[in-house]
Amino acid sequence: MKEIRYFYSPNASDLTELPSDEAQHAIRVLRLQVGDDIYLMDGQGMFYHAEVTLSVGKHCSYIIKEELPQTKTWLGRIHLAIAPTKMMDRMEWMLEKATEIGVDEVTMLLCQFSERKKIRTDRLDKIIVSAMKQSRKAWKPRLNDLTQFKDFIVQSRRGRKFIAHCYHDIEKVDLFEELQQVPQDEEITVLVGPEGDFSIDEVHFALEHGYESIALGSSRLRTETAGLMAVTMGQLSKRKL
Amino acid sequence: MKEIRYFYSPNASDLTELPSDEAQHAIRVLRLQVGDDIYLMDGQGMFYHAEVTLSVGKHCSYIIKEELPQTKTWLGRIHLAIAPTKMMDRMEWMLEKATEIGVDEVTMLLCQFSERKKIRTDRLDKIIVSAMKQSRKAWKPRLNDLTQFKDFIVQSRRGRKFIAHCYHDIEKVDLFEELQQVPQDEEITVLVGPEGDFSIDEVHFALEHGYESIALGSSRLRTETAGLMAVTMGQLSKRKL
Repeated sequence: MKEIRYFYSPNASDLTELPSDEAQHAIRVLRLQVGDDIYLMDGQGMFYHAEVTLSVGKHCSYIIKEELPQTKTWLGRIHLAIAPTKMMDRMEWMLEKATEIGVDEVTMLLCQFSERKKIRTDRLDKIIVSAMKQSRKAWKPRLNDLTQFKDFIVQSRRGRKFIAHCYHDIEKVDLFEELQQVPQDEEITVLVGPEGDFSIDEVHFALEHGYESIALGSSRLRTETAGLMAVTMGQLSKRKL
Repeated sequence: MKEIRYFYSPNASDLTELPSDEAQHAIRVLRLQVGDDIYLMDGQGMFYHAEVTLSVGKHCSYIIKEELPQTKTWLGRIHLAIAPTKMMDRMEWMLEKATEIGVDEVTMLLCQFSERKKIRTDRLDKIIVSAMKQSRKAWKPRLNDLTQFKDFIVQSRRGRKFIAHCYHDIEKVDLFEELQQVPQDEEITVLVGPEGDFSIDEVHFALEHGYESIALGSSRLRTETAGLMAVTMGQLSKRKL
């Protein structure tokens, strides 16, 4: 049986050929031929069953044979806002895994103790697309560019908002326990700090703006593990069974 | 404030100097001096507060000042048996993250569709030790060498046993749902297959030997993500709050 090929094409139904990077992969790596079946994902809930009609040079054209609307497997929205780690590979695998497990939106935060102050959003976006295709996610997680902590906090936001931190003298609730009390279809936003944690000023600023102080269990987790744990707790609380 | 230094020394209380690799790290990298405070972890539930008494060449001696018995943060035992991925770095980060999140035992499985047939247990063990130190785990996860699938299945084992697989025509229960019904202090063993899944024969063989057929949610997960999800589901079910 031939493996089913998935391609990401955000405007699949308006177009008749694959975006150039996907076309190159289709032609040079997969060596698709006229008549081959392909599947297109628009990242907005629709898959398309299509057939290759032309495969020449850098162009791969198709005709859509069937629309395949997908059903989201979880309710509400999961938004992770996280300070990127000094070592970018740790952030990259976190994004790959969060996409596989299921996340709706990720914002990279610039915090007081951030060691990394620049990110390449285009590179991270490619990792998300690759994980989305591999795990057949019908909705593409939205990735926001590096945002100043305080700018993020003052933005109006729906649903419940949480900040994970390591200060022992600020009372915390366990995120997973708390999520059992939150309606499944409610949006949640979880903040995870850099290696050196949020500053105490940042934590207070968030608490003053309606964020709830939380722990992600009792383990001492690295930034990227904490991010993934937050997404997993959200997912296990919001998934449809 | 000086950062607290943790060292792994499985026989800390019987010895008066650090194991050689830890000693080299202490002397060459951290440049510890006589009189410096250190913490020793024996990987069996005990931390020791100690003081450096000699730091010369490759030797770092200490005297123990205080025993600090630790409390385990979860009940029962979590055993993950997983076929190593073709790309070993994926297995390495899974082990790092599973150690951070909390796992008791990991067995590497050799399956019918395994693409990787050899592993370097010593290298993987170092990753576990590093993650254990970083996340301050008082118990070191046990890592077993590559084991033939059928040999593993026929071994007698306490507690509940689960096999995760992708065959749609074999009925499954969701692992996390099922774990809510299992007493917290019971041992669990979860099997995760290679990139090409377990063979249907392997799944039937496991079912005949008391394994229960499970899914890890509805997402299509890579092997290493499935392994981490199994550990996380176990941890969220067994942790003390």
